[in-house]
Amino acid sequence: ILSKVQEEAKKIDRTFPLSLASEGTCQIGGNLATNAGGINVLRYGSARDLCLGLEAVFADGTVYNGLTNLIKDNTGYDLRNLLIGSEGTLGVITAATLKVFPVGEETVVSMIKVKNPQAAVVLLRKLEKVFGKHVQAFELISKKGLEFLDIGNFVFKEPFSTRGEWMILVEVSGSRLFDLKNNFQNVLYNAIKSEYIIDAVVAQNQTQAKDLWYIRENMSEANRLMGAICSSDVSVPISEVSNFIFAADKKIKDLSENLQINCFGHLGDGNIHFNVFPPFGKKKAEFRYLRDYVINTIHEEAIKFRGSISAEHGIGRLKVADLKKYGDSGKLESIRLIKKALDPNLILNPGVIISEF
Amino acid sequence: ILSKVQEEAKKIDRTFPLSLASEGTCQIGGNLATNAGGINVLRYGSARDLCLGLEAVFADGTVYNGLTNLIKDNTGYDLRNLLIGSEGTLGVITAATLKVFPVGEETVVSMIKVKNPQAAVVLLRKLEKVFGKHVQAFELISKKGLEFLDIGNFVFKEPFSTRGEWMILVEVSGSRLFDLKNNFQNVLYNAIKSEYIIDAVVAQNQTQAKDLWYIRENMSEANRLMGAICSSDVSVPISEVSNFIFAADKKIKDLSENLQINCFGHLGDGNIHFNVFPPFGKKKAEFRYLRDYVINTIHEEAIKFRGSISAEHGIGRLKVADLKKYGDSGKLESIRLIKKALDPNLILNPGVIISEF
Repeated sequence: ILSKVQEEAKKIDRTFPLSLASEGTCQIGGNLATNAGGINVLRYGSARDLCLGLEAVFADGTVYNGLTNLIKDNTGYDLRNLLIGSEGTLGVITAATLKVFPVGEETVVSMIKVKNPQAAVVLLRKLEKVFGKHVQAFELISKKGLEFLDIGNFVFKEPFSTRGEWMILVEVSGSRLFDLKNNFQNVLYNAIKSEYIIDAVVAQNQTQAKDLWYIRENMSEANRLMGAICSSDVSVPISEVSNFIFAADKKIKDLSENLQINCFGHLGDGNIHFNVFPPFGKKKAEFRYLRDYVINTIHEEAIKFRGSISAEHGIGRLKVADLKKYGDSGKLESIRLIKKALDPNLILNPGVIISEF
Repeated sequence: ILSKVQEEAKKIDRTFPLSLASEGTCQIGGNLATNAGGINVLRYGSARDLCLGLEAVFADGTVYNGLTNLIKDNTGYDLRNLLIGSEGTLGVITAATLKVFPVGEETVVSMIKVKNPQAAVVLLRKLEKVFGKHVQAFELISKKGLEFLDIGNFVFKEPFSTRGEWMILVEVSGSRLFDLKNNFQNVLYNAIKSEYIIDAVVAQNQTQAKDLWYIRENMSEANRLMGAICSSDVSVPISEVSNFIFAADKKIKDLSENLQINCFGHLGDGNIHFNVFPPFGKKKAEFRYLRDYVINTIHEEAIKFRGSISAEHGIGRLKVADLKKYGDSGKLESIRLIKKALDPNLILNPGVIISEF
């Protein structure tokens, strides 16, 4: 279980940075099979980047023993990365060597009110220029998200006296020697002067940091309570995040002014969860007929901006038709050939990723 | 050509960190096909980690268009990483989307005299704890290496008044705000007090930094002029680097006291080039009969310490028999199946990586 892995790392004064809502129940084998993402991808990468070696069993019972902990090993095809993200269709992952990292001595958590998503991208570029990989989370939150928390009766600390349309939750972490908090506050000060951010709060202690994270961490549950017509997990190039959000927003508003949009997610990775909800007081069941239209619209917009229909949640069975529609034909053909070569009787997770052979 | 890629990055005030001796002539398609390494792997990873997307042509002429620049894209098997490192046996890489990075505002270059490789590992752990990914090179150099430079008539600045048995070339880079040089010197000061390093010089300007790098950068050429009985490119877990070096050294000395060893390389990645030379004044031709014994001995020792027989140079045709001997049977069988599925007529780079089907 992922949280056990995190605990084991802690015991040796290290961190295993894969972190996601289901960490108390999900298993590391599944995290690797699906190349799970989460809130620290910006700094540490996805599950793929946290794994040095794998043991797996193929369809015919052949065991692949690749449980290495080498940083560099250029001996033949990269089976590790092929198995990671193959969603259990090529083999069953039975063990893994994982990377752990030194714990950041100082962590700065801040909520920043920005004019719009474009201003958030400017801030991201600035922070990355100064802090590099010390920026470990850069999460977009909208005013609608806070309204959903209200409706769901979540008790949270209001970060600003007046709510902004868009906010960014930032976490920066590193050695105590780098004086991160002062340096971070200087960057914010200049950003406010340059007017691309409106306001900011910087947590002064762990409790305040937790209060800020509470807002982001409860967003999925608030969405669930509201009942989405559809959820999405798209990614676009960082430079297109703002264009995508406005284009998708316009398409949904054109369909109906009353639909609600909660757009949030891992802006630092270009990974936006653009979720659509019924008007306040209405049930999602009444809008089921819209689901396909809405999700297709979001996917079409993501593709228009050279994006992906699945940033971190994979294909599963739900998006097999979407992959067929939007996926590169050369890629699909290779997937078919590799699947048939490694699992000729199609016994492993049938119907996942691809269903026609 | 790799150096052109580096130049294009510079033009937009960014860095493309792949850097190796042949950068003036090698091509990025080949760098990706072989998952090239080099001196900045510690911070930025191998070629694999510097690539976001690929275009490739498979054996039957099918084009894979995966030229994305997305950070997150979980849609089907990871063809990018399968093609990277496949050494041209699965497809021909025809285009790539590459990552560039902000240029470090401050760069600290230092040569450090250490007691032994084990002390170097202690230093590495300490530097990584404090500077994290700001440590971008950590290169082992031995006294023998300096002797080879002497013999090759390389004109270099002696880093210390008396030569040490083992030296480390370290480069640390990052934002000006982090006061890296002072912080680095503090770490060195404490390390000297704790006696795991003996002495250190820190470059005070670019010329001094270049002088220090000159020593490392000319090591391959100095080796070539000496004429190695055999060169190697092994990796072991960082914690085993010291054990490996002493075990391999003993085996070679047991064979003949007069053989010379130049052991150097990317210690930060666990990647050691353990190269064996004839006694001073003798020609390598006289020792050709020893080559297979010597290289097998080095590989056996690397494997004993859970290492790899090819850290960054790949398999090619030269190490096909070694891969067959040391490679995991499950991995070899999968390589065979994937190769036959994607290139059934075995027309792409025949005899490379694997030769029996």
